[in-house]
Amino acid sequence: MYFAVLFMGAYFLVRLKGFQKLTSIEGALHLFFDKLDVEQTRVVTVSLHEALNRILAEDMIAEEDLPRFDRSAVDGYAVKAENTSGASQFRQKTLQITDKRIVNDNQAKQVWTGNCIPGGADAVVMLENIKRIGSKIEVWATLTPGENISKKGEDIQKGKVAVKAKTHLKPHHLGLIAALGIDKVRVFEKPKIAILATGNELVELGIKPLKNQIFEVNRLVLSTLCDELGVESLDLGIAKDDVNDIAGKIKFGLEKADAIITTGGTSVGAADLVPEAVNKIGKPGVIVHGIAMRPAMPTALAVVEGKPIIILSGNPVSAMIGFEVFARPLLQRMLGSKQKKLRSAVKAKITRRVTTALGRKTFVRFHVHQHNGEFIAEPISARGSSVISSMTKANGYAVVPENREGLEEGECVSVFLFDDLEVTDEDV
Amino acid sequence: MYFAVLFMGAYFLVRLKGFQKLTSIEGALHLFFDKLDVEQTRVVTVSLHEALNRILAEDMIAEEDLPRFDRSAVDGYAVKAENTSGASQFRQKTLQITDKRIVNDNQAKQVWTGNCIPGGADAVVMLENIKRIGSKIEVWATLTPGENISKKGEDIQKGKVAVKAKTHLKPHHLGLIAALGIDKVRVFEKPKIAILATGNELVELGIKPLKNQIFEVNRLVLSTLCDELGVESLDLGIAKDDVNDIAGKIKFGLEKADAIITTGGTSVGAADLVPEAVNKIGKPGVIVHGIAMRPAMPTALAVVEGKPIIILSGNPVSAMIGFEVFARPLLQRMLGSKQKKLRSAVKAKITRRVTTALGRKTFVRFHVHQHNGEFIAEPISARGSSVISSMTKANGYAVVPENREGLEEGECVSVFLFDDLEVTDEDV
Repeated sequence: MYFAVLFMGAYFLVRLKGFQKLTSIEGALHLFFDKLDVEQTRVVTVSLHEALNRILAEDMIAEEDLPRFDRSAVDGYAVKAENTSGASQFRQKTLQITDKRIVNDNQAKQVWTGNCIPGGADAVVMLENIKRIGSKIEVWATLTPGENISKKGEDIQKGKVAVKAKTHLKPHHLGLIAALGIDKVRVFEKPKIAILATGNELVELGIKPLKNQIFEVNRLVLSTLCDELGVESLDLGIAKDDVNDIAGKIKFGLEKADAIITTGGTSVGAADLVPEAVNKIGKPGVIVHGIAMRPAMPTALAVVEGKPIIILSGNPVSAMIGFEVFARPLLQRMLGSKQKKLRSAVKAKITRRVTTALGRKTFVRFHVHQHNGEFIAEPISARGSSVISSMTKANGYAVVPENREGLEEGECVSVFLFDDLEVTDEDV
Repeated sequence: MYFAVLFMGAYFLVRLKGFQKLTSIEGALHLFFDKLDVEQTRVVTVSLHEALNRILAEDMIAEEDLPRFDRSAVDGYAVKAENTSGASQFRQKTLQITDKRIVNDNQAKQVWTGNCIPGGADAVVMLENIKRIGSKIEVWATLTPGENISKKGEDIQKGKVAVKAKTHLKPHHLGLIAALGIDKVRVFEKPKIAILATGNELVELGIKPLKNQIFEVNRLVLSTLCDELGVESLDLGIAKDDVNDIAGKIKFGLEKADAIITTGGTSVGAADLVPEAVNKIGKPGVIVHGIAMRPAMPTALAVVEGKPIIILSGNPVSAMIGFEVFARPLLQRMLGSKQKKLRSAVKAKITRRVTTALGRKTFVRFHVHQHNGEFIAEPISARGSSVISSMTKANGYAVVPENREGLEEGECVSVFLFDDLEVTDEDV
């Protein structure tokens, strides 16, 4: 095929693919987002506990200093720092314990971590650095003013932004918001995505299949990928290879959900049922069909009634890769997240050569592990895009550009991780 | 202090800390796990959708080949490969379309992706590589036997392990299990962790604090960290600085939960209330108290009635780091996960020097981002372990060993990530 391309020019490349034209991933996303206005604006108020993994809808501003008062950072005695001048393990200073609200010269008042610093004191000596003798303490450390004190506003100053809008809320963000005394936050509503599978050969899990039927797995995979992202999903079931059945189910989805993802019924020629159904339903319909990528080449992107429709191949691996490339950035935008990109990536060294075809971005599955502080990526060979075990053996994928025929042994590439990276003893 | 250590020997190091003895993290975990038998054995059966992020309790064995039959990997025509010998764009071969169940010499039968391969055929020519003319097709590609066919058992062979016990189930694992026709799986029960905060100065969120009160945030942070791990949490509320109140609440927790995490009331001397309460409740009680680490030095680990109790400092940052170091590996074991280690880590280059104290493992917070394919780690300065914003400004932490006084600018270290890593355009 490489020869044909060079020899006969672009026309044959086109003809070989069976599509009028293959569009680059970047070009396809650009055309798609250009027709869409999916930035999330609907907001809902939830308790902090419910806010975990939600996207914050507005800047959280500190209404008070944090801490609200000068606070002891340790268990010990509040003192005047100057009274400890010259104290050491060889030369203790003796201070008088007081119960009064004010600490005077050569006095010390017991404080626990978090306690307000009494007036007159400007440092706290830790219990570890004193010995109590009756109503006195011996101090064997020289303190500097402010030592072991959390100053008022030291963490966050009143009026400052504590957590920015569009932050993906993790436990430490919730902790900071709670410390400010805020117990409810406004987060973006979860977008709802309707998922439809198509294909006469498909049978629901739990049903005894006929000899030539296969279990439908894409809705489960796609809906759990939605779960992971914090997106709600709506199951539209399985449609037959019938334009009217498909169109009816997609119409129902458009009424109930913010976006639709379909699998199957998208390739070339007679089986191209989903794009046909979508074009029947409304405008502008299919925007791009046929992507310069492998797998997932037959992916199509459509817009109807202002709502996005992502038309994925029925092959499970193509569907998963198609989700990563097209659905993930869309859903992140719909969630209101500032993270517009793919998954986290690590730079990893490839253990052996990988061959890919020119003219398409190729998504190669890898298993990445750490060895001597380096990331090592083992390519997972898989002949077809229907080999689901190629995904379970891998924990990430790398992208080989269109203008390359593969990756060399020892080359370093970015591997996007879709599963846990095992951390080895040596790295802990 | 470094001088004191070298000059006066170990005794002074000990005395300075206020603990009889500081134990290394590794030593503490060893002593702790030695007294525990927390390997998860309780199993529950759930639907595949509910199994997301659960830990698989048993090997999933394929009861049938996947695919169950030779299947077309593309839309096209099933043929005998030898009949296409020599076909090319310059020399088409013509085959007769058949509707019969068997493909004979120079015949072709239409198949869609996923269809059973008809008898007699051993390859599928893609629609892109043919032209249909009436009841015939012109083929312009030479096929090899098996081409575009997913062979029976190619994905998983009957009797083989499809997904191993103890796997953390992600969407792609669920997809593979579903493809085998399995619709329910046995996963480990979620362990239940009771969480107690202690401290007279603490006030519940939503309540107007007195001048010297602070909002209790640790239970929220710890319970959402449990949520992230897939562990159930039980809220034991806030106990006063009173041994009986603390002991009563811990006893209740021991009845209802599999493990307990407390915060506050653990340091040295008079405020050491939680270890005291735990030792009153039962044997063996506190196993280790005082860890050679910063922050979280006052952490204690205890076992009562065979159940683990992790006694964390009340400072929010210490509590979070203590959770990472002690609770995370415990909970992973209790979940039944094979992942016994900390979070995922990346090797990152430090932008500026960081100073730490000798004799303790120091947990330094960093913000990591990618630049020109490299991970860059910016240290987040924070004076005290009560500065929660040091966690929200960071997305990971690195560990400086006991025998070092810091990290050098430009040095590469493993940073454990507790928040999203932003992926930049250049890496996609």
